[in-house]
Amino acid sequence: MINSPNNSQVKHLVQLLKKAKLRKEEQSFIVEGRKMFLEAEGLRIKSYISESYLVQYPETLELLKDEPYEIVTDSIMQVISDTKTPQGIVTVVRMPEYSLTEVFEKEESRLIFLESLRDPGNLGTIVRTAEGAGIRGVILNKESVDIYNPKVVRSTMGAIFRMPVIYVDDFYGTLRQAKAAGFELYAAHLKGTEFYDDVEYAKKTGVLIGNESAGLSEQAAEEATKLVKIPMEGQVESLNAAIAATVFMYEIYRQWRKS
Amino acid sequence: MINSPNNSQVKHLVQLLKKAKLRKEEQSFIVEGRKMFLEAEGLRIKSYISESYLVQYPETLELLKDEPYEIVTDSIMQVISDTKTPQGIVTVVRMPEYSLTEVFEKEESRLIFLESLRDPGNLGTIVRTAEGAGIRGVILNKESVDIYNPKVVRSTMGAIFRMPVIYVDDFYGTLRQAKAAGFELYAAHLKGTEFYDDVEYAKKTGVLIGNESAGLSEQAAEEATKLVKIPMEGQVESLNAAIAATVFMYEIYRQWRKS
Repeated sequence: MINSPNNSQVKHLVQLLKKAKLRKEEQSFIVEGRKMFLEAEGLRIKSYISESYLVQYPETLELLKDEPYEIVTDSIMQVISDTKTPQGIVTVVRMPEYSLTEVFEKEESRLIFLESLRDPGNLGTIVRTAEGAGIRGVILNKESVDIYNPKVVRSTMGAIFRMPVIYVDDFYGTLRQAKAAGFELYAAHLKGTEFYDDVEYAKKTGVLIGNESAGLSEQAAEEATKLVKIPMEGQVESLNAAIAATVFMYEIYRQWRKS
Repeated sequence: MINSPNNSQVKHLVQLLKKAKLRKEEQSFIVEGRKMFLEAEGLRIKSYISESYLVQYPETLELLKDEPYEIVTDSIMQVISDTKTPQGIVTVVRMPEYSLTEVFEKEESRLIFLESLRDPGNLGTIVRTAEGAGIRGVILNKESVDIYNPKVVRSTMGAIFRMPVIYVDDFYGTLRQAKAAGFELYAAHLKGTEFYDDVEYAKKTGVLIGNESAGLSEQAAEEATKLVKIPMEGQVESLNAAIAATVFMYEIYRQWRKS
């Protein structure tokens, strides 16, 4: 049983929570809680379970009989958890791997492209909503927040294990590649000429959502097939990025369901 | 110029940031930044400006010539601001007053009823999106997060000054009162029998959104005219409360615009 904060595994877990670079190097990240532990089946590298969790869920050891795990004291669980009231189980998980080819080559597909999205809560919410709305993949530029950040992981509510999420080095090149693969790209843009619900979305549709304060870059907007606007009453200048993405995703889903 | 953290006004501002009870007693709250300062015109009680803000925006003193204000050192601004990098202006603002009669008696109206909504970011986002979608009022039970919490105020992006937000003691009684005033009440509910976009919303429409983890209470759901469902793909069990509210608000707005 691990009971020292100086234990090398404990130190490593803390770094893995904090550092995107380390997560990337090791191609692994941390999930917390029973639900995420169960959803991570097949991707689990090692689990850490607190003493009191084991009392509550003794059958966990059965689930882990062919997998590496460690038991830790409740106070060590506090150290390796990103939440104030840890659920008592922390799991190191292998990053799922997805390729652009895989998401581009489908006959029908709906994708979300995020440019420099910064807020962890926004990204988590978008990935969760995307799964709900039948989106087939989320593509981001490298400047966007890390999906494997513990706060993002948590707010995906498990969708992180099911939604292909791909970071690309050359964002504009990827937009061109998507168009070459047959996608129409619709950009959420204040200069849009058509409302989001007057557009008939193509079978291969991509929606471009920009940074929370700056919106989409000129360069990204130029790659769009169409600039599309969300109507707004009152003095609202823009919607939150996750909200704007939702308005698009659910309209596209609506058209797809009703077609 | 205020330069001591022990100054009684500084202590009072810190309490006003922290305590919902004090805000309620004094019927005032705090907004930060230039944009909020300008939007609060007519409701401003007293403004606090940092030295460096005054160098950047010297015309502020002209705007304040008939209003109480204090200049504070940059380090005092850190103390009275709720953000890590203060914008340099903090304003104590009178709470706007709204009555249920006012929002119930309109011929056409769209309202959002929130039951025990707890997340500050969710409430701020709902109020901001509500203004965008042409909603006429947001009604909450007392167990919901305080709209005048600095984090909520910030995430409304100014909509707090334009959207009627009303807390009620008797939430279920208020739902009955709304129906008596001619409202149809649509509850976002997993047991819903119709999809949100198959419903033809009434001219006087209220949408009920429940708590982030528990959803709507049985008692609230029983007051609804109809339980309505948002379709979801994949293994998503529910959407974030602000996202669910958005899906409803933008569909209702769509029907209203196209009617």
